[in-house]
Amino acid sequence: MANSTSGDSVTDRLVRVLSTFTPTRTVQTAAEIGRRADLPSSTAHRLVGELVDSGLLERDDDRRIRIGVKLWELATRSSHALRLRQAAMPSMERVQARIREHTQLAILEQDEALFLERLSGPESGSNVTRIAGRLPLHAASSGLVLLAFGDRELRERILAGPLVRTAAETLTDPAALRRKLAEVAALGYAVAPGYIEAVSTGVAVPVRDETGTVVAALSVVLRRDAVIEPALVELHRAAREIGAALGYRR
Amino acid sequence: MANSTSGDSVTDRLVRVLSTFTPTRTVQTAAEIGRRADLPSSTAHRLVGELVDSGLLERDDDRRIRIGVKLWELATRSSHALRLRQAAMPSMERVQARIREHTQLAILEQDEALFLERLSGPESGSNVTRIAGRLPLHAASSGLVLLAFGDRELRERILAGPLVRTAAETLTDPAALRRKLAEVAALGYAVAPGYIEAVSTGVAVPVRDETGTVVAALSVVLRRDAVIEPALVELHRAAREIGAALGYRR
Repeated sequence: MANSTSGDSVTDRLVRVLSTFTPTRTVQTAAEIGRRADLPSSTAHRLVGELVDSGLLERDDDRRIRIGVKLWELATRSSHALRLRQAAMPSMERVQARIREHTQLAILEQDEALFLERLSGPESGSNVTRIAGRLPLHAASSGLVLLAFGDRELRERILAGPLVRTAAETLTDPAALRRKLAEVAALGYAVAPGYIEAVSTGVAVPVRDETGTVVAALSVVLRRDAVIEPALVELHRAAREIGAALGYRR
Repeated sequence: MANSTSGDSVTDRLVRVLSTFTPTRTVQTAAEIGRRADLPSSTAHRLVGELVDSGLLERDDDRRIRIGVKLWELATRSSHALRLRQAAMPSMERVQARIREHTQLAILEQDEALFLERLSGPESGSNVTRIAGRLPLHAASSGLVLLAFGDRELRERILAGPLVRTAAETLTDPAALRRKLAEVAALGYAVAPGYIEAVSTGVAVPVRDETGTVVAALSVVLRRDAVIEPALVELHRAAREIGAALGYRR
């Protein structure tokens, strides 16, 4: 077909269109979408038009495009992410209420930590994490847990780099990261002081399903100078509860 | 093209494929998807294959298909639903902690109430609502609020029926529903005793944005015999806070 420049499937083009939307870029024109998705203008306009007709994208009064509620609904109502998040919510709420800092649930997704949930209170400190946002595995405390308890192949792939620096204290030296991961595996939790932001310390523990497999990381973002023990006690207890809740399939 | 039976777009077919997944049907074979989406077998297998390749669907070890985490991520990270839900979460958590019953946030979507969030505690009673699930506007307390404060055209369309019965006490008589909606508009809240389930009473209030437009309904699901006043006080306070939080764009 004339508009298919590189033999990629319609699904590929759809993913490229959806990928142009980000947490900080929630509305765009069809022309902007086409440029950012690297699609010919006519293809972009036709595809965006179809997606608006189907409700997956929405067009506002200024003819700008945003993600449709219908896409969120279809993606969410039967998703695995929702099941895990539902199992975790009661325990996460208690951690947030007691520690009063950001409380987060992350899974491994394509070599990054993908955050399924983030609960925050009015007193919670600085935090860059967003729901459905990602962070590099070697930088976030959640990522260190997923990496330390993940398979060896994943670990070697990440250690092979590149290890991006997200803050002055991020571990970007492979040897230092390897020692850190051995420590996380031995301790059963990860502490990441200043790895993401100089003012914060991430603390994370693994969440295991009924087979003992680590399926997620539960974390809090503390002030840099906070004592971590109270948070660790709450996180470990919550992780055990979430694992048990995952065992009861509904 | 040979496989395009009815001239529908690829986007239409994609929506039909995604729509075969529901809260109670989260894994299917490609053949089941094809049958339920009313697609020729070869089309279904090719489309499912493309969607798996792109990560929008996932295939497990038994070759069964489920919604991919990537689809959830793309749909969620820049969605309007997430912004509203984020603005509402701190207030919803307080309502849930104080009333100890299911606390829910719903918006109007294609003539139904779509639930963006549901917080529940271990003591919360019976509840049919699911996140990303829907209920008929005339039956749920949230729906009555969205209907009473929605535009006249919507109200007349719903009153014209059909008004499905979800429980013995659901209002299915248009005249009775019209009186109920006038009452909701006058009182500023909706009480739906036994409309969805005989054992529960839904109580909902409108959430208004900075222009005064009703953008959502906030509700709790109480035991049928519970007093509603404490819940109403909490709901009204939370709705005001959410409206104010929506005003601060981030």
